[in-house]
Amino acid sequence: MLTFVGLGLYDERSVTIEGRDAIGDADRVFAEFYTSRLVGTDLDRLETFHGTDIEVRDRAGIEREPEPILEAAQSADVVFLTAGDTMVSTTHTDLRIRAEERGIETRIVHGTTAQTAAGSLTGLQNYRFGKATTLPFEKAHGGEGVPDSVVSTIEGNRERDCHTLVYLDIKVDDPHWADGDDTYMTADTAAELLSVEFPDQLAVVVARAGSPDPLVVADTLEELAGRDFGSPLHLLVIPGELHPIEDEALAAVADS
Amino acid sequence: MLTFVGLGLYDERSVTIEGRDAIGDADRVFAEFYTSRLVGTDLDRLETFHGTDIEVRDRAGIEREPEPILEAAQSADVVFLTAGDTMVSTTHTDLRIRAEERGIETRIVHGTTAQTAAGSLTGLQNYRFGKATTLPFEKAHGGEGVPDSVVSTIEGNRERDCHTLVYLDIKVDDPHWADGDDTYMTADTAAELLSVEFPDQLAVVVARAGSPDPLVVADTLEELAGRDFGSPLHLLVIPGELHPIEDEALAAVADS
Repeated sequence: MLTFVGLGLYDERSVTIEGRDAIGDADRVFAEFYTSRLVGTDLDRLETFHGTDIEVRDRAGIEREPEPILEAAQSADVVFLTAGDTMVSTTHTDLRIRAEERGIETRIVHGTTAQTAAGSLTGLQNYRFGKATTLPFEKAHGGEGVPDSVVSTIEGNRERDCHTLVYLDIKVDDPHWADGDDTYMTADTAAELLSVEFPDQLAVVVARAGSPDPLVVADTLEELAGRDFGSPLHLLVIPGELHPIEDEALAAVADS
Repeated sequence: MLTFVGLGLYDERSVTIEGRDAIGDADRVFAEFYTSRLVGTDLDRLETFHGTDIEVRDRAGIEREPEPILEAAQSADVVFLTAGDTMVSTTHTDLRIRAEERGIETRIVHGTTAQTAAGSLTGLQNYRFGKATTLPFEKAHGGEGVPDSVVSTIEGNRERDCHTLVYLDIKVDDPHWADGDDTYMTADTAAELLSVEFPDQLAVVVARAGSPDPLVVADTLEELAGRDFGSPLHLLVIPGELHPIEDEALAAVADS
């Protein structure tokens, strides 16, 4: 049995009771933290909290050498941990397909996500979010500024009067990334890049979603580009035209 | 202090550790179950699990008479519970705005949602989901078949090659709804309604997301209309063109 458990948004207390129980019942627990990361905790604290060893695998250890995980799951209860929900990355989907193909039962224990938190923390209505996008570091996409695909996603959503959730690049355990480079794109950097394409655009920054002190700031991209939102993770929402209740909610919950 | 806690998707173990702790620390705990419901548990089991009284409020008790909740939160630690994540309904946003306006500190503890689960359970890629929509009972929208707004959301997403998550109507504690009428729209009913507008369309049913036995079934809307997916809650995904990895994932995880 291979159970995929999403650890949720922020620290060791972001997991569900069901997830905690699955970890407690498992014979072996694997994890990866290169697709996303719990910025409010570390491996030691996770292991102590759950009273178990957690075997962390890097990208190569999952994508190129998944055999040890699959072999363990063939004869024992194995849990595979990720930050957020599980299955968001194709890496996890691929591992699940391989398991199913050799007759290993799989199960999913969901976790809280930035996608949900973005609507909830900002007061923007959930059903008005269109397709989401990820803004990469300039160096990562090998071009300057904002990739066309990101611009067209935002423009397409604006044409349909939808909000766009913009995930910001994370470079953990990336073979093409130097150790000295930034690991997490911050919202001020994102706002600066996006302000070139979308001048005078209102945007909403959400910093540290799921933590005890999340920060929500609404302003134009130009203004946001000059601010500091503290430690990661950050994300950005480009809203469509605000409905009156959204306008009121944002004024009540956001700094400006 | 007014803490909004999302109880997650299914039963009393769907809440996060952080949410459980907030409930345990609260002086009073309120809840509403008319915008959504935990189908895997009931009030007694929730109260026993958390060792606390839970004061359930109906729609009128929150939308027209929020005073008792706000007054309690002015001088004590109050928790307000909902299924799924919190703030998905404008009701909750409104309560939060009122609290903030009178200087009551508010806090949000996120929960797992059907939105996240829909991508995770089906193997469809999260970033390809466009705007979501809700399919109402025919009687509820006072017309026949599928409302134009639902059709245009699905068509708009298809034009942009996005998936559409279709929430199915829930009628709990609705003054315009007779007791004998269906409470939860099932996926076969939804598929029948949608097949008129979208013949030969592939769709994916997700039943009981977040439960120990979620069901995922992929087929044309016509075929899905003739099947029985068991107890609620159900939801439906109308995918865009499947990418190869999505096709493979769906074949591995879905019944057909």
